[in-house]
Amino acid sequence: MKALVYHGPGQKAWEDVPDPKIQQPSDVIVQIDTTTICGSDLHILKGDVASVAPGRVLGHEGVGTITEIGDGVTTLKVGDRVIVSCIKSCGKCSFCKEGLFSHCLGDEGASGMGWVFGHLIDGTQAEYLRVPYAETSVYKVPEGVPDAEAVMLSDILPTGFEIGVRAGQVKPGDTIAVVGAGPVGLAVIMTSALYGAARVISIDLDANRREQAHKFGATHDVDAAAPDWREQVMALTDGLGVDVAIEAVGIPQTFDACLKIVRPGGNVANVGVHGKSVDLPLQDLWIQNINISMGLVNTNTTPMLLNLVASKKLPAELFATHYFTLDQMMEAYDTFSRAAETQALKVVITRD
Amino acid sequence: MKALVYHGPGQKAWEDVPDPKIQQPSDVIVQIDTTTICGSDLHILKGDVASVAPGRVLGHEGVGTITEIGDGVTTLKVGDRVIVSCIKSCGKCSFCKEGLFSHCLGDEGASGMGWVFGHLIDGTQAEYLRVPYAETSVYKVPEGVPDAEAVMLSDILPTGFEIGVRAGQVKPGDTIAVVGAGPVGLAVIMTSALYGAARVISIDLDANRREQAHKFGATHDVDAAAPDWREQVMALTDGLGVDVAIEAVGIPQTFDACLKIVRPGGNVANVGVHGKSVDLPLQDLWIQNINISMGLVNTNTTPMLLNLVASKKLPAELFATHYFTLDQMMEAYDTFSRAAETQALKVVITRD
Amino acid sequence: MKALVYHGPGQKAWEDVPDPKIQQPSDVIVQIDTTTICGSDLHILKGDVASVAPGRVLGHEGVGTITEIGDGVTTLKVGDRVIVSCIKSCGKCSFCKEGLFSHCLGDEGASGMGWVFGHLIDGTQAEYLRVPYAETSVYKVPEGVPDAEAVMLSDILPTGFEIGVRAGQVKPGDTIAVVGAGPVGLAVIMTSALYGAARVISIDLDANRREQAHKFGATHDVDAAAPDWREQVMALTDGLGVDVAIEAVGIPQTFDACLKIVRPGGNVANVGVHGKSVDLPLQDLWIQNINISMGLVNTNTTPMLLNLVASKKLPAELFATHYFTLDQMMEAYDTFSRAAETQALKVVITRD
Amino acid sequence: MKALVYHGPGQKAWEDVPDPKIQQPSDVIVQIDTTTICGSDLHILKGDVASVAPGRVLGHEGVGTITEIGDGVTTLKVGDRVIVSCIKSCGKCSFCKEGLFSHCLGDEGASGMGWVFGHLIDGTQAEYLRVPYAETSVYKVPEGVPDAEAVMLSDILPTGFEIGVRAGQVKPGDTIAVVGAGPVGLAVIMTSALYGAARVISIDLDANRREQAHKFGATHDVDAAAPDWREQVMALTDGLGVDVAIEAVGIPQTFDACLKIVRPGGNVANVGVHGKSVDLPLQDLWIQNINISMGLVNTNTTPMLLNLVASKKLPAELFATHYFTLDQMMEAYDTFSRAAETQALKVVITRD
Repeated sequence: MKALVYHGPGQKAWEDVPDPKIQQPSDVIVQIDTTTICGSDLHILKGDVASVAPGRVLGHEGVGTITEIGDGVTTLKVGDRVIVSCIKSCGKCSFCKEGLFSHCLGDEGASGMGWVFGHLIDGTQAEYLRVPYAETSVYKVPEGVPDAEAVMLSDILPTGFEIGVRAGQVKPGDTIAVVGAGPVGLAVIMTSALYGAARVISIDLDANRREQAHKFGATHDVDAAAPDWREQVMALTDGLGVDVAIEAVGIPQTFDACLKIVRPGGNVANVGVHGKSVDLPLQDLWIQNINISMGLVNTNTTPMLLNLVASKKLPAELFATHYFTLDQMMEAYDTFSRAAETQALKVVITRD
Repeated sequence: MKALVYHGPGQKAWEDVPDPKIQQPSDVIVQIDTTTICGSDLHILKGDVASVAPGRVLGHEGVGTITEIGDGVTTLKVGDRVIVSCIKSCGKCSFCKEGLFSHCLGDEGASGMGWVFGHLIDGTQAEYLRVPYAETSVYKVPEGVPDAEAVMLSDILPTGFEIGVRAGQVKPGDTIAVVGAGPVGLAVIMTSALYGAARVISIDLDANRREQAHKFGATHDVDAAAPDWREQVMALTDGLGVDVAIEAVGIPQTFDACLKIVRPGGNVANVGVHGKSVDLPLQDLWIQNINISMGLVNTNTTPMLLNLVASKKLPAELFATHYFTLDQMMEAYDTFSRAAETQALKVVITRD
Repeated sequence: MKALVYHGPGQKAWEDVPDPKIQQPSDVIVQIDTTTICGSDLHILKGDVASVAPGRVLGHEGVGTITEIGDGVTTLKVGDRVIVSCIKSCGKCSFCKEGLFSHCLGDEGASGMGWVFGHLIDGTQAEYLRVPYAETSVYKVPEGVPDAEAVMLSDILPTGFEIGVRAGQVKPGDTIAVVGAGPVGLAVIMTSALYGAARVISIDLDANRREQAHKFGATHDVDAAAPDWREQVMALTDGLGVDVAIEAVGIPQTFDACLKIVRPGGNVANVGVHGKSVDLPLQDLWIQNINISMGLVNTNTTPMLLNLVASKKLPAELFATHYFTLDQMMEAYDTFSRAAETQALKVVITRD
Repeated sequence: MKALVYHGPGQKAWEDVPDPKIQQPSDVIVQIDTTTICGSDLHILKGDVASVAPGRVLGHEGVGTITEIGDGVTTLKVGDRVIVSCIKSCGKCSFCKEGLFSHCLGDEGASGMGWVFGHLIDGTQAEYLRVPYAETSVYKVPEGVPDAEAVMLSDILPTGFEIGVRAGQVKPGDTIAVVGAGPVGLAVIMTSALYGAARVISIDLDANRREQAHKFGATHDVDAAAPDWREQVMALTDGLGVDVAIEAVGIPQTFDACLKIVRPGGNVANVGVHGKSVDLPLQDLWIQNINISMGLVNTNTTPMLLNLVASKKLPAELFATHYFTLDQMMEAYDTFSRAAETQALKVVITRD
C-alpha cells in the first residue's frame, strides 16, 4: 500500500510500504477513508520528537472501514465504519479503568503511553492501518455524520474539550480567554459552549484567525501584539481577570500571558505542546488560589462529542478548509505547513 | 492594653497600645483568651512582607470572648466564646458568595484580600482585638472544646485541609506524599485521613519531625537528604508515583520534588509560602495530565473541622507543644523561632 | 400605596395598604418597577398554602429601585436598580453559608425557610416592598438589561436551572426529557443549553406549548396524550432511556412518567410543586442506579444567570408574552390564570 | 465437581455437577478457595427472584486461583490468585465505559445486567467457576491479604461504599444515620470513615447488632423500636436532621424512617433490596432539597478498597464470624440463615 513515511528530520515520502497485518487477537485492520494532518506531525518532521524512528508511517487521525478483525474481537465486524482515536486504550490497565487512556499501560507501543499511532507504531496517513486494542480504541460512526466531520473526533475536538474546557473547569456564565486561535484553540472555543461560557475571548497575533474565531464561538477578540492587550482583557471582565485562561500555542510567552490574566480562584489550562520549561512566579501566585492543568487527551469524551456532532450541536465541518485525496498527501502537507498564508485550519484527505 | 507590636525588620515589643474600639456596625471586640504564633509572623519580622507597616500588632490566630458588639450584629452577643478566623469574610462580595473568602473584597483592609489580621489591621497577639465583619468571620466554640484545640482552627487545620488535602483532591485509597513536616505539613497529614488516604508518606530532612509525623497519621517517612529519596517514594507506590504530592515548605527544591514524584493524572498541591519563582518543566509535564493547585486558606471548612474536633475525630491537641501566658509573649516567640532545637510545633499562649 | 392583597381562598383585591417601612438595619425599601405572577400565586389564591394569612400582599418576583436603606446596609444605595430574589438569604446561618438559601434560618419570616415574600411577609405585587437581609437578597441590574428580562431572574430562570438542570446533573451530550412545558419547564429547556444537552425532548399535552418549547431550545417534542408516548421517547434515545427526566408539572402521573423513561444510571429531577404523595416502585428501581432530586430554588446562581442574560446568551425576553401596568393587576391575573386559552407564559406588570 | 444447586423455592443441595469449561476467549476458570453467602442468596432460595432457574449454582462472592484461561486473555495467567467480583464487566459497552458495570450490556448473561453469577450463570458456591470477561471482572489479590478479608471485596465492601457512602455523598464532618446493622449496613458504617463522617448513628432493632456496629465505626446507636427513636436521632444532630440517611434493610418502614430524619439539603441512599413499592410524600418533600439515590454495586471501587484492606486501613476481617469448609456448605447456610440467633455476619467457607 501507499503511506506517508518519515525518513528523519525534514524528510518524508508518499511511498509503497507493506500492508499491515493482524498481530494480536484484539487487532483490526482499517482501510483509511479520510485522514488529516496535525501540528504535531510537523513537529515530528522537524525532528523534535526523538521517539519517532525513521521509517514510521505518520498520522494519528482517521476515519475508515474495517477490513479484517482479530480472533478476540466480538463487538466490531468487517464493514464497520469507524473513527480511529488518536489514543489507543487497552481497557484493562489501571489507567484505562480510571479513564486516563492517555497513559494506557497496554504494552502495544511504549508502556505508559496512549499515543502510539504515527509515533510508536505506524499511523493513519496510509491506505490501511492496524489498530491494536480495537474494541476500546475505535468508535462506530453513526449514519449521517460525514467523514470530514467524523475525522475531527480523532483528536482535535476531544483535545480542545478535555484538556481545555473540562480540565480548565469552564462553567456556565464564565468569562474565558483562549490564547492561540489555531485549530486546537478553535476546538476549545467551539466546545466551551458545552459548559455555557458567557464570554469567550480569542487572543492571537493573526487578524484572520481572530476573525475565524468568532465563527467558532468567540464573543470577543484581542490582538496579542497590542501593547495594552492585558488591559483589553481585564476590561472585558469585572477587572479581576478571566475565570479560565487556556493556553493553545505551546511557548513560554503564551503560558505566561495566561498567568497574567487569570482571576483569583481561576484556572489555567495548558493545551499547547511545549518544548521548553517556563518560569512560574510562585512568589506572586501562591496566594492566588489558581489551578494549573495540563495533559494529553484521553478521548473518553469521544462518544459524547460524536453524539453532539451527529445531533448538529457541534459544527465540526467548520474546521475543514482544504480537501485533498490520499495521493495528494505531499500537497496537503505543503498547504497545511503554510497555514498562515493558506489560511488552512484542517486539511481533509480522502481515499477518492 | 498590651500587644506584640512590629517595629520594622527584626524589631518587636510586647507593649502598651490603645484598646481597640468598634468602628463599623458589623464589628465586635474580642478579649483574646488564647493565641499562637505562625511561621508567617516570623516572615513579617524578617521584613519579608512589605505590606505590614511598623506599628502593626501581629497575629492572626486566636480564641476569645466577645466583650462588645456593633449595632448591626444580631447573631453574636457579649460573652460568646469564639474562634477568630485568620481570614475575614464580608459575606456579601462576589468572592465571599462563592466561598473564596481568601479574596474577600470587603474594603475593611485591602481590596481583594481576606487576610487582614496582623497584616493590614491589628492582630490577635494582644489582650483585645477588633474583628470586622464579625458575624461571618468568627465561629462560636462548642462546649467541651478547649482553647488549645480551638486555636488550631484559626489557620493551621483549615489551611492543611483546604489547600493541601482538598485542593490536592486526595481521595479514598490514595497514596500521598507530604513534603515538609512542620506544623502545616502535619495539618495536611492529619486531615488527609478525612478523605481516606491509604498511604501517607512524610518527607523531611529532620528525623524528629519525621517521627512526629507518624503520630499525626503518616504511614511512611522518607529522609529528604537520602540520595535515593525519590526511589524510596516510588517503591512505596506501584512505581508510577504518588497520587498527590503536597508542598509544605515554600522553596523551589521542595516544589520540584513534588513534580518528580507525582504520577500521570495526579495532583500537586502547593501549601508553602514562596519567595521566589520556580522552574516548571512544561516540556516534560505537558503530557503528564497533572494538576497544580495553590492558594491561601478560605476557612470555609472551619465549622466542619470544628465539628470533627468537637467529636474527637481530629486530635487537634497534638499540635500544642509549649505553653505560655500572654505576658510571656517574647519568650514564646523565642521558643517558636528555634523550633528545630526546641521541637516546638505550635506554642499556645493564654491569658492566664 | 396600592397592592394586591389576599383575602382568603378565591378572594383578592388591588387596594390601598400602608407603605412598608424599614424595620431592621439590614432592610431596604424598593419601589417596584416591574413584577409578574407565578403559578404558586394561583395556588395561594385557591387556598392551597395554609401558611399564607389573609391580608398578605402577594408576589415574590420583582425588579425595582431602592428608595431607602437601613443603617447596616453598606453595599447598596438609594437609586440602585435591583432584582428582588424570590428567596431571602441572611448570609450568616449555616444553610446560607453552604449556599442552601432556600432553607435560610434567618428569623425574618419562618425559621428554616428562604421563601418569605408573598408568603410570610408582604410581597412584590405592590408599589413598594420591604426587603429583609437586602445585601444578600437583591442583585444589582447591569445596564442594558431591561426589566422584562431581569424579572425572569427573580424565580423562573434560577428555578429551572438549579432544580431542573443542575440538580438533574445534565451534562454535555445528554438526552433529556422535560415533562411539562409551562413557564418553569421552558426555563429548564432554555437553561439546559448551559450544560450542552444534545437532545431536549419536550413532553406536554398542549400542542401550542410543545411548539413554543422549540423556541426555547427543545429539539423534539412528544404528545403526552399519545398512547405510545413512552415508545416515542425511547426511540429518541438508544432504547435505554433518557439521561435526565425532569418533572415540571407537580402531579403523580408526570412524576411517574419520569420514572418510566429514565435510563439506568440516570437522574430524575423534580421541579413541580406537589400536593399529593406518589408511589415509588422501589421493587423495580432499587437496582436501576437512578437518582431523584427535588427542592426549592436557592437563587445562588442568579448572578451567573444574570451575566448570561446581560451577554445575550439566554434570551429571557421569550418568556414575556403579555404586558400590563400595576393598576391593571386584576386583569393581569385574569390573563395569567387562563393561560391555556390566552397562551400566556409570563405576564410583565410595570409601574408605568 | 461439587456445588450448591438451587432446585426451586426452598430446595437446595450440595451435589455433583459438571465441571465448568472455557466458552469464550475472554473466559477463565477459577478454583474457588473461599466463598461466602449473601442475604440475596436466601431471597433466591425463597423463590423471590424469578430470573434464577432451578439447576443454577448459587453464589456471587469468591476468592480463588485461576486454573485455565481463554485464548484472548493476556493480563491473567494460570496460578493467579483473584477476587471474583459479584458484577461482571465486559469493559467495552457504553455502560462499562462510564463505570456503570452494574448495567453491563455484554451479552454473556442477560442484556443490561452486570450481576450474572448465581443468577443468570453458575456461581461461586462451588469448587470451580467460569468467569466471563475475566480480565475486567476479577482482581488480583496482593500478597498479605488473607482470603477471609479478600472475599469481603466481592460484594459487601464495594456495595456499602458505592451505594451507601458515595451515592449518599457522605463528606467530612457529616452526621450520618445507617438504618439496619446487618452485614451491608456494617459495610456502610465501616467505609463511611473514608469520607470522614463525624458522627455515625446505627439504627437497628437488635441490641447485639447495635453493639457490633460500634466495632465497625458507629459513634452512636438508636433502638429502632424506641417510641422516641426519631427524637433521639434529631438530638444527635443540630435539630435539623442528619446529613445522610442510609437504608440498609429493604422494607417500606426503614425507607420511610430515612425520609423522616434527613435534613433539608441532605441525601437518602437506598442500599436495601426492596420487594414492594414505597410511598413518597412529595407534598412535603418537594421543598426539602433532598436527593434519593439507589442502585446495584458497580464494583469499580474494588481496586481502591482492596488497596485500603491491604494497607490495613479497612479491617475487613471483622465481618468474618463463622468458618466452614466447602463440604459444610449446608451447615454454613443453616448458620447464616439463623443470623439473629447465631449472631453471624459473614460465614467464610474455604476449600480446606
